[in-house]
Amino acid sequence: MDIIVLGPGATDKKIQRIVRKLEDKGFTANISRGTERTVIGVIGDTSKITDEESSTFESMPGVEKVLRIIQPYKLASRSFKSEDTTIKINGHVIGGRKIQVIAGPCAVENLPTLLKTAKEVKKAGAAFIRGGAYKPRTSPYSFQGLGEEGLRYLAEVKKQTGMPVVTEIMDPRDMEAILQYADIIQIGARNMQNFRLLLEVGSYNKPVLLKRGLCSTIKELLMAAEYIMSKGNNKVILCERGIRTFETETRNTLDLSAVPVLKELSHLPVVVDPSHGVGKRQLVAPMAKAAVAAGADGLIIEVHAHPEKALSDGEQSLKPEKFKTLMKELRAVAKAVGREI
Amino acid sequence: MDIIVLGPGATDKKIQRIVRKLEDKGFTANISRGTERTVIGVIGDTSKITDEESSTFESMPGVEKVLRIIQPYKLASRSFKSEDTTIKINGHVIGGRKIQVIAGPCAVENLPTLLKTAKEVKKAGAAFIRGGAYKPRTSPYSFQGLGEEGLRYLAEVKKQTGMPVVTEIMDPRDMEAILQYADIIQIGARNMQNFRLLLEVGSYNKPVLLKRGLCSTIKELLMAAEYIMSKGNNKVILCERGIRTFETETRNTLDLSAVPVLKELSHLPVVVDPSHGVGKRQLVAPMAKAAVAAGADGLIIEVHAHPEKALSDGEQSLKPEKFKTLMKELRAVAKAVGREI
Amino acid sequence: MDIIVLGPGATDKKIQRIVRKLEDKGFTANISRGTERTVIGVIGDTSKITDEESSTFESMPGVEKVLRIIQPYKLASRSFKSEDTTIKINGHVIGGRKIQVIAGPCAVENLPTLLKTAKEVKKAGAAFIRGGAYKPRTSPYSFQGLGEEGLRYLAEVKKQTGMPVVTEIMDPRDMEAILQYADIIQIGARNMQNFRLLLEVGSYNKPVLLKRGLCSTIKELLMAAEYIMSKGNNKVILCERGIRTFETETRNTLDLSAVPVLKELSHLPVVVDPSHGVGKRQLVAPMAKAAVAAGADGLIIEVHAHPEKALSDGEQSLKPEKFKTLMKELRAVAKAVGREI
Amino acid sequence: MDIIVLGPGATDKKIQRIVRKLEDKGFTANISRGTERTVIGVIGDTSKITDEESSTFESMPGVEKVLRIIQPYKLASRSFKSEDTTIKINGHVIGGRKIQVIAGPCAVENLPTLLKTAKEVKKAGAAFIRGGAYKPRTSPYSFQGLGEEGLRYLAEVKKQTGMPVVTEIMDPRDMEAILQYADIIQIGARNMQNFRLLLEVGSYNKPVLLKRGLCSTIKELLMAAEYIMSKGNNKVILCERGIRTFETETRNTLDLSAVPVLKELSHLPVVVDPSHGVGKRQLVAPMAKAAVAAGADGLIIEVHAHPEKALSDGEQSLKPEKFKTLMKELRAVAKAVGREI
Repeated sequence: MDIIVLGPGATDKKIQRIVRKLEDKGFTANISRGTERTVIGVIGDTSKITDEESSTFESMPGVEKVLRIIQPYKLASRSFKSEDTTIKINGHVIGGRKIQVIAGPCAVENLPTLLKTAKEVKKAGAAFIRGGAYKPRTSPYSFQGLGEEGLRYLAEVKKQTGMPVVTEIMDPRDMEAILQYADIIQIGARNMQNFRLLLEVGSYNKPVLLKRGLCSTIKELLMAAEYIMSKGNNKVILCERGIRTFETETRNTLDLSAVPVLKELSHLPVVVDPSHGVGKRQLVAPMAKAAVAAGADGLIIEVHAHPEKALSDGEQSLKPEKFKTLMKELRAVAKAVGREI
Repeated sequence: MDIIVLGPGATDKKIQRIVRKLEDKGFTANISRGTERTVIGVIGDTSKITDEESSTFESMPGVEKVLRIIQPYKLASRSFKSEDTTIKINGHVIGGRKIQVIAGPCAVENLPTLLKTAKEVKKAGAAFIRGGAYKPRTSPYSFQGLGEEGLRYLAEVKKQTGMPVVTEIMDPRDMEAILQYADIIQIGARNMQNFRLLLEVGSYNKPVLLKRGLCSTIKELLMAAEYIMSKGNNKVILCERGIRTFETETRNTLDLSAVPVLKELSHLPVVVDPSHGVGKRQLVAPMAKAAVAAGADGLIIEVHAHPEKALSDGEQSLKPEKFKTLMKELRAVAKAVGREI
Repeated sequence: MDIIVLGPGATDKKIQRIVRKLEDKGFTANISRGTERTVIGVIGDTSKITDEESSTFESMPGVEKVLRIIQPYKLASRSFKSEDTTIKINGHVIGGRKIQVIAGPCAVENLPTLLKTAKEVKKAGAAFIRGGAYKPRTSPYSFQGLGEEGLRYLAEVKKQTGMPVVTEIMDPRDMEAILQYADIIQIGARNMQNFRLLLEVGSYNKPVLLKRGLCSTIKELLMAAEYIMSKGNNKVILCERGIRTFETETRNTLDLSAVPVLKELSHLPVVVDPSHGVGKRQLVAPMAKAAVAAGADGLIIEVHAHPEKALSDGEQSLKPEKFKTLMKELRAVAKAVGREI
Repeated sequence: MDIIVLGPGATDKKIQRIVRKLEDKGFTANISRGTERTVIGVIGDTSKITDEESSTFESMPGVEKVLRIIQPYKLASRSFKSEDTTIKINGHVIGGRKIQVIAGPCAVENLPTLLKTAKEVKKAGAAFIRGGAYKPRTSPYSFQGLGEEGLRYLAEVKKQTGMPVVTEIMDPRDMEAILQYADIIQIGARNMQNFRLLLEVGSYNKPVLLKRGLCSTIKELLMAAEYIMSKGNNKVILCERGIRTFETETRNTLDLSAVPVLKELSHLPVVVDPSHGVGKRQLVAPMAKAAVAAGADGLIIEVHAHPEKALSDGEQSLKPEKFKTLMKELRAVAKAVGREI
């Protein structure tokens, strides 16, 4: 059901032109004339009307606006699939009763530090290791990641610890290498609307961790998931990681209300990245606990064995001992809301 | 310590003019000349320099910018007073180990509904009754509150239930009436920078619940608290209630990271209003739990015995039975983070 | 015409409850049943439905959302009054073919500087003198304005130059003094939703310059104008002065598209304040020219004879000679768009 | 020059650790001890310090924050190259006294319509034809562009009209095809931080039109230009096209103050896209005029021979006759600010 609103000067002729156009497309029109405005309800399966078709109505004479009632995403929506999607990776289930924790450094820097960090976070209860081999950096002069070498370090860590690997893709041309080493492919916030990259990761049967863009609405996040799913890959994990607002005390504003909203609109699992969400080490723990209380299915937390030497995001990385304490606190909160970690 | 940055063309003469001006005001200047920029560190108690004095330096020839390092608020800051402020009201302590819950309808509409709601929320564990007698409404044609009649209903409810009253002030001319009936005076989000009103409530020894403005930074919230405290009233309770962002799925974006940030920067108690923060009934419970997990000292929740008849904000009000369930869940989360409700 | 949207589970019973409630209020319901959603068009003069009545429908079982088609403001709307409103003040017309320029210091500081500035801006072509006697300042320790003394200086300047006076009100209790001295009463951005103050200035027949709030939508600005007009005062001048965004290079983001939008939605004159909009002296001239090209009816520009000594906003004030040059440039742009200055 | 700020508890030992680390890197430290804070000025060419090195200082004990004074972009900055960059394409100069207009449909749909539109806009005075062959669309179900076929249509139009072609790249794998047909390669707003794509277009000697991201700061736009320039391609044209804010009356908020800010910070030409900036046909003309008044070097305007049939953005496209009128008006404004079109 879509709704077409016509302004005060809507003549019969203008209305009839719209009705005819709707009928040509197989819809029925329901006309309500108000004192100032006329409203045409479009009856039929309007989910098949694309945005551009809808916008052609907006350009017709007399039309004030077109309101879309149907959600523009389908495969990602709760109304399409009512039960929660669960994604099983090396025996770990994302989207179930158990809250999964993904931990590790922002960027892969060298094997010993990565391995040390991995062993520590595993001992503390994290199931997945994260680390960027390809790094999106604001400056071309900043460390851009180790590339394939970084992927090989991640593979070595997986071999030694058994932890599945989460790592980011930035370029469709790296797909082959990433597929070989990653267990979950991350799409970073800056690439959430890199539609070609979405279609690329949608073409494989590999789980995708899709981060919300810095200024993307919840609806746009679901549309990005729809891009991936439209190619056949249903293993999409949504990730809230903070949006850009006017506030400057935190790096971003972590929008925790996105968690219950996404759980209502979609069947996909939702994880939260408090590290990027706030950007300050001392705020990670309270926001991680809040994320669990809000209903998150998982957390992705930056941990670095030597944050003061980190090549990126050192100021928001936890030391392993802090992470261990946090995991204990998270267990209590998870239990309080009927979950476990 | 303030810092004055001069651009590439900073001549000795320009630098000396600034140094002399600083020395006239009793400060010492520390000059560091870089390859492109020159930086003057201002040594002395620069907290006494007001913003406008600081800005006079910004207009001097050669100056690129003035960076203020000192926080512009003093009485509200954690560095001024390191231990948490606790506020005792009719035997209930705000800011202590116990998390306090303020509940009730958005607006006071009639005595029976208010009384019914109050009794129910009290039974469920709320300590304070809230309700607006003076209502800030976007439209002049909307219900503007019952005024003093509403205050009298609140007084009657307090008499019958013993619950202290939280109600909003909109106009300094209502101060006398409000003082007579309220136990906590609320400053609404839209009045957070109504500086005259802040000075007015600062002149009495009555606790003030100060809501963060829709587009106010955390720093501005603390500056508003400073306004109240500068007149001698230290009983200020800070309230996060959602900020305005581009997201439209929720009424506002509840910025829960403001809770740990405020606890770090200030000694004042911090409460969260999840009802206004999200604006949708079904999101109130998860965000209330998240607020407690994030470290809030209290919650302010809209409860209405008949939300479908509410004259304002019905769509975000909980029914008493839902509130009762929520309180049980909140108790578990509070315990998990070492608090109680 | 309002629209009520019901979700997939809308039973006949739920629909009938809504229809009956509408009919009780004198409306007719037009029901369109789609495959997933049902839409009820409300026929009748729904402009009489207040927001809270509308929201009571939102809380009824089955209802997903209520869409309001009618603009919530009436007196301020172009559909209520199609011809442009012009406001005549001491022989100067605001809202006509001629673009009016209001100039002067941010705050009134002393008589000689104010007088000097006034004479210079008058010579350059400004018609109105501006200056704050009551100043809204972020910090309680900043200069708060000279109060009534400042008003008297403005009166003296008016006497000597003949320039009508624009000055800000912050507190309804200052109304009497302001009425005596001001030709246009300014409502500052931070008070745009100080509804009591709006009602107060609405009660007199004195022109009001209403500044858009830092995070107020265009619709909210028009609702604030509606507050003033609802009390009988139709002499409202709307002012765009920059909104708060994530961008930090400028003090605010001057939303010049608000000018043609406001001219389309409302009959009220629209002026632009580029000084506060950008907050940096060197950006004032290009944005002032852009405002005129976008269709503004006036400009309000900060000019200070000695910006480096200004007690507030020195960094965004023009010196008189720069203002003179700007006025010349503005005349050319005004002519190019069929106006004059 | 960078500045390191230490908090109240900065011991001599902590300060010495930082000083030693600075000296190890070849810098000199200038220490200013205030009453509460200690400030270390870093003397030497700190533009060589990358962000991640800078952030390692932020993680050192005692450090409160690190302030960077040096702009993080170099090649794009006005201080690196003081005179305006001009880019010559098929005899048309972008960045000079003459304001260049790029016009055409949002997407290439078919050859006859494109050709008709091109001929009309050329006659009206546009120098460049625009049209998307690869279209970034929010929905996977929307029209995604004609791909290479679209590029061939553009080539045909160029052949017949002589107009150079502006078209968007979305994927590095399309580079070869785009290089063959485009005279200016457009990077869309959603790809402004697709760093791999930036490096790709930086590797060729083809002009790049770089659109500002929806939530990108001016600084980030310049950093994106720096990515392109760091690979050797200096032919970058910056484009303001509206940012995302809370305002919903316009599609985006066109930030015209970005024009003078960019002209001050950078030597690169700046063009404005009012069509995407506002998203409503009737607002394009006033904002185009305002852009010219603000100092833009060019405009990019959507024109479609049949907007009501457009497959995308029909509601913001001008009809050729409206465009012709606008060009006439623009000529007058350009002349008023000492430019020509």
